[in-house]
Amino acid sequence: MKNILGREIPEYIEGYGQVRPYKGAYASIDPRTRTTITRRSIKPGNKLEPGDAKLLASIEEAVEKTGLKDGMTVSFHHHLRNGDYVTNMVMKVIADKGIKDIHVAATGIFACHEPLVEYIKSGVITGISVNYISPGPVAKAITKGLLSKPAVFRSHGGRPRAVEAGDLHVDVAFIAAPCCDHYGNINGTHGKSACGVLSYIYPDAQYADQVVAVTDNLVPYPACPIEITQDFVDYVVTVDSIGDPNGIVSGTTKVTSDPIGLKIAAAAAELIDETGYIKEGMSCQTGAGGTSLAVAAEIKKRMQAKGVVGSFGAGGITAYFVEMLNEGLFRALFDVQDFDLVSVASAGSNPKHMAMSGSLYGNPHNCGPVVNNLDIMILGATEIDTDFNVNVVTGSDGTIMGASGGHNDTAAGSKISIVVTNLLKGRLCVLRDKVTTVTSPGETIDALVTDRGIAINPRRTDLLEKLKNSKLPIMDINTLKEIGDKLAGKPDPIEFTDRIVGVVEYRDGTVIDVVRQPK
Amino acid sequence: MKNILGREIPEYIEGYGQVRPYKGAYASIDPRTRTTITRRSIKPGNKLEPGDAKLLASIEEAVEKTGLKDGMTVSFHHHLRNGDYVTNMVMKVIADKGIKDIHVAATGIFACHEPLVEYIKSGVITGISVNYISPGPVAKAITKGLLSKPAVFRSHGGRPRAVEAGDLHVDVAFIAAPCCDHYGNINGTHGKSACGVLSYIYPDAQYADQVVAVTDNLVPYPACPIEITQDFVDYVVTVDSIGDPNGIVSGTTKVTSDPIGLKIAAAAAELIDETGYIKEGMSCQTGAGGTSLAVAAEIKKRMQAKGVVGSFGAGGITAYFVEMLNEGLFRALFDVQDFDLVSVASAGSNPKHMAMSGSLYGNPHNCGPVVNNLDIMILGATEIDTDFNVNVVTGSDGTIMGASGGHNDTAAGSKISIVVTNLLKGRLCVLRDKVTTVTSPGETIDALVTDRGIAINPRRTDLLEKLKNSKLPIMDINTLKEIGDKLAGKPDPIEFTDRIVGVVEYRDGTVIDVVRQPK
Repeated sequence: MKNILGREIPEYIEGYGQVRPYKGAYASIDPRTRTTITRRSIKPGNKLEPGDAKLLASIEEAVEKTGLKDGMTVSFHHHLRNGDYVTNMVMKVIADKGIKDIHVAATGIFACHEPLVEYIKSGVITGISVNYISPGPVAKAITKGLLSKPAVFRSHGGRPRAVEAGDLHVDVAFIAAPCCDHYGNINGTHGKSACGVLSYIYPDAQYADQVVAVTDNLVPYPACPIEITQDFVDYVVTVDSIGDPNGIVSGTTKVTSDPIGLKIAAAAAELIDETGYIKEGMSCQTGAGGTSLAVAAEIKKRMQAKGVVGSFGAGGITAYFVEMLNEGLFRALFDVQDFDLVSVASAGSNPKHMAMSGSLYGNPHNCGPVVNNLDIMILGATEIDTDFNVNVVTGSDGTIMGASGGHNDTAAGSKISIVVTNLLKGRLCVLRDKVTTVTSPGETIDALVTDRGIAINPRRTDLLEKLKNSKLPIMDINTLKEIGDKLAGKPDPIEFTDRIVGVVEYRDGTVIDVVRQPK
Repeated sequence: MKNILGREIPEYIEGYGQVRPYKGAYASIDPRTRTTITRRSIKPGNKLEPGDAKLLASIEEAVEKTGLKDGMTVSFHHHLRNGDYVTNMVMKVIADKGIKDIHVAATGIFACHEPLVEYIKSGVITGISVNYISPGPVAKAITKGLLSKPAVFRSHGGRPRAVEAGDLHVDVAFIAAPCCDHYGNINGTHGKSACGVLSYIYPDAQYADQVVAVTDNLVPYPACPIEITQDFVDYVVTVDSIGDPNGIVSGTTKVTSDPIGLKIAAAAAELIDETGYIKEGMSCQTGAGGTSLAVAAEIKKRMQAKGVVGSFGAGGITAYFVEMLNEGLFRALFDVQDFDLVSVASAGSNPKHMAMSGSLYGNPHNCGPVVNNLDIMILGATEIDTDFNVNVVTGSDGTIMGASGGHNDTAAGSKISIVVTNLLKGRLCVLRDKVTTVTSPGETIDALVTDRGIAINPRRTDLLEKLKNSKLPIMDINTLKEIGDKLAGKPDPIEFTDRIVGVVEYRDGTVIDVVRQPK
């Protein structure tokens, strides 16, 4: 069958199941039922005997105590980013015990998770689902079809939706805990492996059958402030180190110094300003990349010039947003991860710098995530097509490069979503007739700002009206594509096998696209 | 049938249902299933049209929008204490609309809720469940049998257990919100009606079918810091005032100056010290009454003398505990309500002063509530019997005077639970052969400290061993009772009708006792 975007998707995908086809960005925001969950109760002391202890001697003991066995789903989070040791340590124990057919439900996979490739090959790991994946060995292994079942790519809001709905049932969640006490109170902002807030794993703490905290920093009770509370944690394991500080956070995150990036940023900010989004109470989210931060810098200048105070900055937080908070340009920050040391420190100490759960961030099936309140969203893209559909999952050679992260959540929720990118990337034009893989549907993308011109989604007649006297290089997206094609030439079409190696779920759990193995 | 404490309880109670009899304080701490819940999803704007708004014009509109109808359960919380306007305002609208047969699931009822009596008489309200009730008009109405169904008395931990298990299904939760934004982010610590943390209502926000925030302080988005997040709130209503500041918090809470109270406090502290509980990492909870605070003051002196730092203070928080936190005598506070202005301010600003949900506080059916980590608990009693069973529900004339609150949660969890009381109250001896109503079972009560002597629960052979050379006036509880009876005379037995007006649930949901209507 074809879904409404014309993507060819089977009704049933082996290793994934029945497909609910994508029906539009706002088509399935209906009442939803949260799943049940059965959890053990931890006995207090009975006055004469001590109660159940949670502290275990090793990850091996945790794997034994939780009864981890073939076919189960284990979950991990990616706040330790490319410094994470926990996923590899746990999976090694699982592999060493001869357990097979494991579904790794990670919020993110990085290059540091290369050891998983061996477990994929040996059948220890047969399924992977992620909301974020960086280009690297695991992404390559999935592209090559080494994984038995198709990988499932969700968004940061779609994952908690799936967890709460019972679509993604986690048997055992392993939480990398930079600060933890013996009874499982956890925060991510303190300790030698401090990484900032642990937002993406909150739903697993609430909905997994069992939860194991893995820490290298066992502190006296109670760990404080608490992000994940003891009533959701079954076991605590201490290890020497949960991560490599160099991979966990950047020392600093910086605005780009590339002149093309700066030019794109200036144009994006001008567009935002001309369409009336620089105003009292405005909210804003950008990525942590140099060009995104350059847009933030331009927006900041304009806020200062107008004397505007924003309501909030959101998403993955950088020093740049902390500075804006501290300078009074935002009243608050909603934080799902911290990219640098300044952000980690701020998240751990400033009450206006608030962690938000993945569900509060982007889950479309609750009483309204924060993305619904977002005005301005600055996005990236590996490809974008003339229907404004965006691909951030695959590169133009069909290789898996990423997952939605917050892309389709924020695109759907924000009042103006702008893709900023060089028109040409690696000698290829990012503008396509059809993107290789749809991650965010075009109806949620409002503008494309490139170094060679700007295209406004024709659905946004309101924006076009406001921009009719603009001096910005606004043009039809097809015209922009022609410019790109002239410069780069028409790319050769990629050839694919029939093998589906990835299923891309839209934030509401419908299938927006699939990834087929490139020939 | 008789439960294991020998209390005569029917197997089925009309208006309550099948009875699960109490089987021991630690007998039912098994794996438990959390209930499902279906919630609406709030639409974001679709770029061209605004999304669903939550702000309603009036409580009347909220009652209409939520589809409130005969037979439903509505819930309220008691953090505005004797200053609460919200319960009465909402129930007036419900009554005015001719809706009947409503179950009021309040976390607490105070004298200010007198208007509910009329609704009880007229059949608007047919059921009430509470974890706290102060002596007053509603308590009297229940005692007199005016309510169609028996009232249900739970503990602070038992209520969230019931909510999570689906035993207490809330159709619409009304949250009195001292600080709220248009999208339903809430805190209790800011605004003209600031009352402190809103902990007891967190489970309702998560498990009610619909949630309405009622506020007199609509602030720009986002309310900050957030206690209850927007993803759990359907509607927001503004009113002129949610409460009377004079009834919400005391200006100050003070240590008693009564010499008998001070004598009891000194003896309790000496007992705690001699049994080894004044030590590094100790934790402590007392009530907010003058004698309880006097025990805290004595404990503080001994902590200072030994140079001991405690892990945490917990429960309802007073300026006294805030002072101990700020002086470094505790590393943290776990807070479920704030009794005075100092505590409200601290809860709103100090990251070490942490709100805890009712479930985190005392729910026996999760991965371990904070009461499991509590060392020292100072308790009150209206009666205690020679089996150490405590009554805080009824007075010695059979009138309803209160509910467990955290009594049986903390008694079960703490390492030493001590009831402090004058031996004689209102010319009656608090020590009975059998208490009128069991709230906390004797197996969880370790000591009784009175002005006339101290009794240690004989089960606590460890305490008796440590106290064998003590100069404290330790005696058998029967001896202490004889002293009381000699002074006060044997009380006349109360006569009861067969009518059950109240069901007392133990924290685990079993029925520990019933309240019959006095003749």
